[in-house]
Amino acid sequence: MSSNDSLARLAAVIESRKPSQGGDPDKSYVSRLLHKGPDAFLKKIGEEATETVMAAKDADHGGDPQKIVYEVADLWFHSMIALAHYGLSPADVIAELERREGTSGIEEKALRKLQGREAGQV
Amino acid sequence: MSSNDSLARLAAVIESRKPSQGGDPDKSYVSRLLHKGPDAFLKKIGEEATETVMAAKDADHGGDPQKIVYEVADLWFHSMIALAHYGLSPADVIAELERREGTSGIEEKALRKLQGREAGQV
Amino acid sequence: MSSNDSLARLAAVIESRKPSQGGDPDKSYVSRLLHKGPDAFLKKIGEEATETVMAAKDADHGGDPQKIVYEVADLWFHSMIALAHYGLSPADVIAELERREGTSGIEEKALRKLQGREAGQV
Amino acid sequence: MSSNDSLARLAAVIESRKPSQGGDPDKSYVSRLLHKGPDAFLKKIGEEATETVMAAKDADHGGDPQKIVYEVADLWFHSMIALAHYGLSPADVIAELERREGTSGIEEKALRKLQGREAGQV
Repeated sequence: MSSNDSLARLAAVIESRKPSQGGDPDKSYVSRLLHKGPDAFLKKIGEEATETVMAAKDADHGGDPQKIVYEVADLWFHSMIALAHYGLSPADVIAELERREGTSGIEEKALRKLQGREAGQV
Repeated sequence: MSSNDSLARLAAVIESRKPSQGGDPDKSYVSRLLHKGPDAFLKKIGEEATETVMAAKDADHGGDPQKIVYEVADLWFHSMIALAHYGLSPADVIAELERREGTSGIEEKALRKLQGREAGQV
Repeated sequence: MSSNDSLARLAAVIESRKPSQGGDPDKSYVSRLLHKGPDAFLKKIGEEATETVMAAKDADHGGDPQKIVYEVADLWFHSMIALAHYGLSPADVIAELERREGTSGIEEKALRKLQGREAGQV
Repeated sequence: MSSNDSLARLAAVIESRKPSQGGDPDKSYVSRLLHKGPDAFLKKIGEEATETVMAAKDADHGGDPQKIVYEVADLWFHSMIALAHYGLSPADVIAELERREGTSGIEEKALRKLQGREAGQV
């Protein structure tokens, strides 16, 4: 099964967990986060980003890289809960990534920005 | 085209940007980040997570939700650069997300954890 | 000189850098961040928090702990720019920390919350 | 009382909570975080940075600025737990901030870096 199907199916599960769609905050983790409101799942995005960074630093020093996979999965999962809340979907994110890939010069612009940072680096 | 193809194709582009694969840090943003080493792209993950949170808070107050899509795309993109560095791929992340979806009880455990937090909340 | 004097003096310098106080965005870093608006310095808080975490993980694996000091200094410094923007000061933060220290039972509540999290941990 | 005394006293309390100093992980929140090890308190730094950003965005849209004070207090408090773990103190951070203030040209360098970023901005 393609990941499109996978992400789209996961997005559909998240959609069905919305309290407005009958999701029960006492039975579903996703429903509970959506019921608690943006701060609850946005905070998780910051938290899972930090855990991704920690897992990567551990892998730099001999730790199990598989832990990075778990943390990125958590990060993407909570991103998808946020997307759902705002009426967006992983398909929107993938379309944006494809658009960039198709736009010649995008990487060159990002490169110039990075070089600009380095040039001015303290 | 499915997102599997999209993410896999983007992962292949990132792979080809590795300096060890001939990627040129003076011409490619991805090559440059990979050449600079983990701290360069891990820092971006923290930065893009923060920007995602800010875009979402703006959307809560009338801002354009499309900005969330840009920031999540940045966040996922830099996650994919990290995955590539550690020999991992978006397919690994999607397999992990599928595994969880298939494992009954996962959401219930996460829910109990969240309820535990709330019970002890200051 | 006490750190009260130090932090208060640094806060006064930041205050004088506000464009409304005559700070020049073309000559002062702080003026420029304040002129660019909240997203500019809030993003730095997320970035410096990530860099603090990375420096600490490096120290766990033999890196120089002094790097943690630099990153925490950056984190506190950018926090102080944010405080200034919102009409707040480090003295407010220190008063809040003292208030907590003086309030018996605060640590016990935080502990119960942490234990609650652990009890429900996946 | 000066904030030096305040921060130094808080640092002393944290120091006394170290399990090696007799701190009890079952009675003290700080002892428990220190006992659990770096990932526990480093994760909190990422989390509290995100909460600071959210409180600031809320204040931009009419929310209570006092909430920023609470979140910055949490951020600095958990930074101090990390400092203690690595044998460092808030006095080290304040000395670093003073050193920068005293070093002419520091702000100019940071400014050039920021201008470099802006010049290359996508």
